[in-house]
Amino acid sequence: MFKSRETIIIDSDAIIQIIKTIGLHQVMEDLIFELRESLVNFSEKEIEVPARSGFNYKKPFLGLVEWMPVMKKGHEVIIKVVGYHPDNPKLFKIPTILSTISSYDSHTGHLNFIVDGVLLTALRTGASSALASQLMAHPDSTSLGIIGCGAQSVTQIHALSRLFDLKEIRIFDTDPSAMKSLQARIAPLDLPINLEFSDIDEIIATSDIVCTATSIAPEKGPLFEHYECKPHLHINAVGADFPGKIELPLSFLRKAKVCPDFLEQAVVEGECQQLAPEEIGPSWVKLMQSKESHTAYQKCLSVFDSTGWALEDLVVANLFADYAEKLGLGEKVNLESYSADEKNPYGMLYSSAKSLQK
Amino acid sequence: MFKSRETIIIDSDAIIQIIKTIGLHQVMEDLIFELRESLVNFSEKEIEVPARSGFNYKKPFLGLVEWMPVMKKGHEVIIKVVGYHPDNPKLFKIPTILSTISSYDSHTGHLNFIVDGVLLTALRTGASSALASQLMAHPDSTSLGIIGCGAQSVTQIHALSRLFDLKEIRIFDTDPSAMKSLQARIAPLDLPINLEFSDIDEIIATSDIVCTATSIAPEKGPLFEHYECKPHLHINAVGADFPGKIELPLSFLRKAKVCPDFLEQAVVEGECQQLAPEEIGPSWVKLMQSKESHTAYQKCLSVFDSTGWALEDLVVANLFADYAEKLGLGEKVNLESYSADEKNPYGMLYSSAKSLQK
Repeated sequence: MFKSRETIIIDSDAIIQIIKTIGLHQVMEDLIFELRESLVNFSEKEIEVPARSGFNYKKPFLGLVEWMPVMKKGHEVIIKVVGYHPDNPKLFKIPTILSTISSYDSHTGHLNFIVDGVLLTALRTGASSALASQLMAHPDSTSLGIIGCGAQSVTQIHALSRLFDLKEIRIFDTDPSAMKSLQARIAPLDLPINLEFSDIDEIIATSDIVCTATSIAPEKGPLFEHYECKPHLHINAVGADFPGKIELPLSFLRKAKVCPDFLEQAVVEGECQQLAPEEIGPSWVKLMQSKESHTAYQKCLSVFDSTGWALEDLVVANLFADYAEKLGLGEKVNLESYSADEKNPYGMLYSSAKSLQK
Repeated sequence: MFKSRETIIIDSDAIIQIIKTIGLHQVMEDLIFELRESLVNFSEKEIEVPARSGFNYKKPFLGLVEWMPVMKKGHEVIIKVVGYHPDNPKLFKIPTILSTISSYDSHTGHLNFIVDGVLLTALRTGASSALASQLMAHPDSTSLGIIGCGAQSVTQIHALSRLFDLKEIRIFDTDPSAMKSLQARIAPLDLPINLEFSDIDEIIATSDIVCTATSIAPEKGPLFEHYECKPHLHINAVGADFPGKIELPLSFLRKAKVCPDFLEQAVVEGECQQLAPEEIGPSWVKLMQSKESHTAYQKCLSVFDSTGWALEDLVVANLFADYAEKLGLGEKVNLESYSADEKNPYGMLYSSAKSLQK
């Protein structure tokens, strides 16, 4: 309900303060908890999620800008705008994915808050893989493989480490410097594990859970063709998010149960691009809500086709908005420009003109 | 091109400072000039405008939240998010239309700036009617009629007064208090005209140009059925912006040349909902770019079906961003949260962890 004309700007400084105060592990655990609650209670009567759309282009650099809307009916509309520009790190020393998340009051259209979407997307993508792995991976999984050691790999490892007792983490990246720097990047997580440099064949052969989060170019996938693997291998395929971009071979997908986060999107941008409708399993939320045991999934090959679902953004944005409110963080601005007289767009310019009114 | 990770927040205070410094008439004239330039030079090769989409609902209050994207290829993506909630004034004493406009760099996805869209929408909607009237209304028009005396009426009168030598303005609103307060609301425009309270029949009968900007409910239109009017009457139909919402009778539309601002949208939300494709004239931009004389339009009945086109938002947002930059206004924040190491989403939390890296 409309409380104030103020918009809260939750910027990078506020995010840092929030995480330092709450604690990084606690934030990830809160997020996993909230996301699980939202999935378990998800109903299309209450939440409307249209497919995202956007502009994609090859000039001046390959990229896209997309908007991902979601409405919690009678409450709010969340819109994440996300840019994906794989040349960003090389050209500008900034992340491939830049984004912000905005929340609008669906009573009035007022912009409630706007918050960073870069760290929040990385966090919720990690939390999503952890929850999907809890559903579909072997419950005693101890061996994690990471293919693609960019920004997303840090939050994948972080989130999975909160739900699984990891003993081994094997990593691979086509860029050796990304492999070398990952140990230092996860140092703040205080995991009692040394990362092992590996290759794709060995990772697929030895892991219980694998996360693929690469910047492989559209039409250049999959990452591997032939493979040996454990019979229960679960893969979180995180990288595919662009038409033509795929990470996993069709031969693997056809042997695995494939669970998309958001079917309409996964068939356009995800691994599901490669599959016929009858080859795709139930969606993430259906699986989460199913009363049947997930043991069958946990014993066979499985894939979480993670293309990014707006519900995840709704959950992480509101988690941080709640933290900000509780901690008194974020800056309040009057972004929408109007006067006390709602019929006078110029009222705030000439408040003395009020005296002319009867 | 990417210059800085900063996002400029151009809030209500900055807007007030800009207009007080530049001058309200100068701002409107600059906007009309820039908008005309953008229309004359518009090319689908350079500008991509998808149809807007959004959520619309009847509970808890009738309303919608829409996003209106536009891309200037190789430069920027502008997204206006607009809420339309006709109960806002009554329930919350805030405007029916609330909105913000964001500009993203299409090289990187970075959010360049975010600016108020409430006043800016009112300004550009006025400027658009003025430009459409310059194309289609009789050049010697002196008599203006206003049906609907809400917020939009102020900027309609303002913009038209910059291009026409208005001698008479007749006004009508179903709410007498809105009629009574309009004279005071336009006082800062320093127009040498007294508004005359009138009714729809008289306004249609006596005006050279009419602007309809009402909140008539969907399925309750049109505003009038039978009419007498001057043979060259031009109507700027501004109010229709919702499926089922119309202001003008079909009998009038069929006798007039009807020019939509954005055809794909006008057939869903505008007066063009009522017309078959062959009854709709060329779009605004085609008319603007046509080398033929507009005299035929200026001598007959004509309608500008103004549903709001994202190009207008691109123009007004950039005008205000340019003003803000020139005047050093707007607040700079780091909204996107990332560290100097683009591969380390947690880098900004633990800058001391850098020392662990080789």
